[in-house]
Amino acid sequence: MIKIALLGAGRMGSLHGRNAAASARLHLAWVVDPQADAAARLAAETGARVATLEAVLADPEVKGVMVASSTDAHLADTLTCLRAGKAVFCEKPLSLWAEELETAGAELTAPGLPPLLVAFNRRFDPHIAALARGLAEGRIGKLESLHIVNHDPATPSLDFIPRSGGLFRDFTIHDFDLVAWLLGEEIEEVFAFSSCLIDPAIAELGDTDTAKTILRGASGTLCVISNSRRSGYGYDQRLEAFGSKGALRIENLRDDAVSYWGEDGPHGSPFPYAFPDRYGDAYRAELDHFADVIEGKSSPRAGFAESLGAIRLANAAQLSVQAGAPVRRNAEGKFDV
Amino acid sequence: MIKIALLGAGRMGSLHGRNAAASARLHLAWVVDPQADAAARLAAETGARVATLEAVLADPEVKGVMVASSTDAHLADTLTCLRAGKAVFCEKPLSLWAEELETAGAELTAPGLPPLLVAFNRRFDPHIAALARGLAEGRIGKLESLHIVNHDPATPSLDFIPRSGGLFRDFTIHDFDLVAWLLGEEIEEVFAFSSCLIDPAIAELGDTDTAKTILRGASGTLCVISNSRRSGYGYDQRLEAFGSKGALRIENLRDDAVSYWGEDGPHGSPFPYAFPDRYGDAYRAELDHFADVIEGKSSPRAGFAESLGAIRLANAAQLSVQAGAPVRRNAEGKFDV
Amino acid sequence: MIKIALLGAGRMGSLHGRNAAASARLHLAWVVDPQADAAARLAAETGARVATLEAVLADPEVKGVMVASSTDAHLADTLTCLRAGKAVFCEKPLSLWAEELETAGAELTAPGLPPLLVAFNRRFDPHIAALARGLAEGRIGKLESLHIVNHDPATPSLDFIPRSGGLFRDFTIHDFDLVAWLLGEEIEEVFAFSSCLIDPAIAELGDTDTAKTILRGASGTLCVISNSRRSGYGYDQRLEAFGSKGALRIENLRDDAVSYWGEDGPHGSPFPYAFPDRYGDAYRAELDHFADVIEGKSSPRAGFAESLGAIRLANAAQLSVQAGAPVRRNAEGKFDV
Amino acid sequence: MIKIALLGAGRMGSLHGRNAAASARLHLAWVVDPQADAAARLAAETGARVATLEAVLADPEVKGVMVASSTDAHLADTLTCLRAGKAVFCEKPLSLWAEELETAGAELTAPGLPPLLVAFNRRFDPHIAALARGLAEGRIGKLESLHIVNHDPATPSLDFIPRSGGLFRDFTIHDFDLVAWLLGEEIEEVFAFSSCLIDPAIAELGDTDTAKTILRGASGTLCVISNSRRSGYGYDQRLEAFGSKGALRIENLRDDAVSYWGEDGPHGSPFPYAFPDRYGDAYRAELDHFADVIEGKSSPRAGFAESLGAIRLANAAQLSVQAGAPVRRNAEGKFDV
Repeated sequence: MIKIALLGAGRMGSLHGRNAAASARLHLAWVVDPQADAAARLAAETGARVATLEAVLADPEVKGVMVASSTDAHLADTLTCLRAGKAVFCEKPLSLWAEELETAGAELTAPGLPPLLVAFNRRFDPHIAALARGLAEGRIGKLESLHIVNHDPATPSLDFIPRSGGLFRDFTIHDFDLVAWLLGEEIEEVFAFSSCLIDPAIAELGDTDTAKTILRGASGTLCVISNSRRSGYGYDQRLEAFGSKGALRIENLRDDAVSYWGEDGPHGSPFPYAFPDRYGDAYRAELDHFADVIEGKSSPRAGFAESLGAIRLANAAQLSVQAGAPVRRNAEGKFDV
Repeated sequence: MIKIALLGAGRMGSLHGRNAAASARLHLAWVVDPQADAAARLAAETGARVATLEAVLADPEVKGVMVASSTDAHLADTLTCLRAGKAVFCEKPLSLWAEELETAGAELTAPGLPPLLVAFNRRFDPHIAALARGLAEGRIGKLESLHIVNHDPATPSLDFIPRSGGLFRDFTIHDFDLVAWLLGEEIEEVFAFSSCLIDPAIAELGDTDTAKTILRGASGTLCVISNSRRSGYGYDQRLEAFGSKGALRIENLRDDAVSYWGEDGPHGSPFPYAFPDRYGDAYRAELDHFADVIEGKSSPRAGFAESLGAIRLANAAQLSVQAGAPVRRNAEGKFDV
Repeated sequence: MIKIALLGAGRMGSLHGRNAAASARLHLAWVVDPQADAAARLAAETGARVATLEAVLADPEVKGVMVASSTDAHLADTLTCLRAGKAVFCEKPLSLWAEELETAGAELTAPGLPPLLVAFNRRFDPHIAALARGLAEGRIGKLESLHIVNHDPATPSLDFIPRSGGLFRDFTIHDFDLVAWLLGEEIEEVFAFSSCLIDPAIAELGDTDTAKTILRGASGTLCVISNSRRSGYGYDQRLEAFGSKGALRIENLRDDAVSYWGEDGPHGSPFPYAFPDRYGDAYRAELDHFADVIEGKSSPRAGFAESLGAIRLANAAQLSVQAGAPVRRNAEGKFDV
Repeated sequence: MIKIALLGAGRMGSLHGRNAAASARLHLAWVVDPQADAAARLAAETGARVATLEAVLADPEVKGVMVASSTDAHLADTLTCLRAGKAVFCEKPLSLWAEELETAGAELTAPGLPPLLVAFNRRFDPHIAALARGLAEGRIGKLESLHIVNHDPATPSLDFIPRSGGLFRDFTIHDFDLVAWLLGEEIEEVFAFSSCLIDPAIAELGDTDTAKTILRGASGTLCVISNSRRSGYGYDQRLEAFGSKGALRIENLRDDAVSYWGEDGPHGSPFPYAFPDRYGDAYRAELDHFADVIEGKSSPRAGFAESLGAIRLANAAQLSVQAGAPVRRNAEGKFDV
């Protein structure tokens, strides 16, 4: 068993901590969180013990650290752990701010550092992986366009909005990373419309809740991303890839394979309501990949470069909305009007 | 346009009459019904005129007659029209009673008679026809078994039960004809369980409302028929064919291709509720086939032999229930214990 | 029967002509086409007779004319027929050019003219109509966004491209009309990306084959239209409406309800390959609506205003592509950068 | 962690052993198998050690034993372990022979014995469990009939046939247990037709490969079971329950949620091919239930009584085939002609 530690006993930290405890390959030894109660509760639940970050980094048997601290601490915590020689599994995003990432870039890409895995969960979903295999095998010929629907079941707490980084950096970032992964070429242009249709309080906080973004790839490929903070029917997570010889698509999962036929027609079981349900397998696969990375069997599927790429696309969409114009990639890889 | 007449302005007569009126090939000239009101109403609706049977048969321009009189008059009316030289489209069944059919057999199969089409609607359904084509093309290799679900949306009026001929002769007869058509070999053994689960009044009238029938074909092929007089969710009309290399199946149609996703999950539009909705295309195709038959372009897809075959299977199932035993086909083609 | 005439015996004229011949309400008496062969063939097939336009207009019994001449003659032919007192069913578009429509607007909207129906087929599709009813009944609460997929099975002949008016005016126009109809509010902003991914010859002719268009309505509603000239799998015609309480969607139809299960998994029957298959019911319903319009039972569901609205949206998308910028509706109802 | 041992390192033993090794609640300490290689291989893979049964039973820390020895040793091994005070998880069937079970019945149902869980996997499948919940909640009113399709992907090795107990005892037994569980009333009558359609060598060994069984419950409820040893398209595992107010059904799962649209129409990803794929979740849930049983949190969901009930139904079907007649339950709970 590979001994690991966890930084952060909040929502995502608890999810990863429980998965680590149930893993046959990883031994979650330590939980670190400034909130002593949260740390103690999660440690009790997972059979781990509470520790300070210093103690964890000083433990030579600890091979990896899962960073699930607050978003604005991700990058600093990651750097601290990497410098201490620990492999890092960092909950996404590594940072919400491209400038921070650019500043840290030289260090993060220097040779000799332990591996860094940034946990973009879509990359580990078995359904998306199956679609990606289909693309790679040429089932639909040359890929021409991608459609992504990513609608949350219900709006987050209003408290969260100001520290979220905004719809594009917080939420669409998953889709930007998907596009970058699946499209296989650079995005050259981005345009977005966004509206606040669900809750005017979100607009008062300077954010939006509904957006449609279109992106053009280097060879003219076209991608559409639809985002909404509230679907009314669960977590809408769909993907369609159109190519020269056909299409591959992922429909929403259902809670089970039962359907009910009644007076008003056929009903399927509901869609998974929220991300821990929809992406449960992906979260477990991420951890298994982290075990592979620590053991040197794989290199991380996503790390610094993917984090910077996704944030730059989020910035591009944000800038497009502000400028009311499409933005284009410049020679440095950033987007401007 | 081919000039035709209609006997019977009841439920099925009206359905066929309206289809004839909308046909570009058939000209519905006459409607005959002892109930003067019904005849007048349907004639007005279809642009036809009311007549007596004698007048219709005396009209040399009338090439065909649709017999949709009361079930117990089907055979006699059919014979009268055939003897008068008119092609006949007879609503199923030609008769509920095998003995009647056997008695009439010599005349009905004599050379020189005009053609007789017995309107088993399943034989004209485009979905079942597509499945039958798949079987004929060998898509599933050698056919091994058939499963049929035939559940009505709601029980018929209790008045109808005593004159229906019983569940097997009235309702399952469609499925017996389907099996005979699709299986492509003689049925050698039949066993049925039936129960009265929906309405005890049906049992008091000596009938049942729920049945499961299994049939074995000459080469060992096996068929299952499920019948219920009430589904609670519309007209359940499904068919599965299993073969050596796969399966072909027909799912229920829906009223339209719209689905609704709400708080309690995904809903499809309802299934067609009743037979005129589900088999609307089949009823229109039947009439078109009748036009082909009159013009000598086709021979009838179902007639006397198919009617006798289906009624014998219905009798077999009925006898199996009464005897509490499987029944087997004898040298004369009838079934006994 | 309502006596009508048909101008144009080409692809669309033949389709409408055959439907008229099969209609129980309309009597297609005359076919007019400068190509004598085509007119004769279609007349023979439909039981109509060949005539000149003058003769048709002089026939006082002719109540309506179906205009299916070449696209660039639609408007002039329509005006000629209306001036002669005939109701007109004009195949879409009334004109590809907003200026032409604006010029003709005063006359076309003057009181006393016979009714003009412009045949936008989507408005008559039973599936889209069912979705529209669901919206009107408030099944999904307040409508927030629409997604339309409109992909042709295969590219048109290259000959057609130069006279098509371009992808947006020729093809996307259906989607613009759908958006205008279903959204229920004015479109204020339009942005489109287009690419030539399928056939470089289309680019050489100055057109594109793939486009993603986003539109913003007056209250912030957002619409996405995806267009491709070639799907590789048939005619992809899907629609999703997202609202405050759920979603309504239309999936692609299938040729029949049969599915096949084989070694490589489950297969459904193919999608309708082309527009006459997918919209067969809509074309028949259009004609029935024309009969209602002639009889004064309905006013036309789409006419001059809808034609101008759709063409202005097509122009907006075209201008957005040319300018590389979103375009906005001005006080006159036109769009500029 | 609960210390357990495994008897049998064959196909089912390996499956259960691997699941135990991956469990966070169970510690698989010992593997016992007369075939030393197989035991060693599985022990190495699961981190367990090889032992004799005597050593396992002598280990006071071992709380439970998983019996996955050869089928004909299940009952004796189970008794040996229970007598030694160990809870038992016995792979189905406890025995193929009703007489053996009846003989052991007094001992197996005596008070004071450790708990015995017989691993009928369907009882632990989340999809079937969801359907069972729906029945219990009255979603379809009073249950009237059940349809089960249980078709294997491909015939087993011919070596297996003679020791299988025959199609009904080996394969249909799952369905008999499902019916007993879901129907909630005693079965009073059973009739089966069986045929050898797939491989004549199976007939030469005295068995059949295709069967349709119908069962009648005490209140007249009707069940249909369809079995085939070879589907040609994967493991067909479907279930439909019809009630007074509607139906609940389970469709086949698919390997993933991806579909492919190509020239010949839409394709879904294949069905799980074999039982370890289709029932993977059920096998894991069984073990978790065993942990609950050992800890006294649950009583076994299936044990001796369920085993005897299912075998009696299998015998009933077998007898029905031999006698060519339906069989009925007598006062002792056995079935005769």
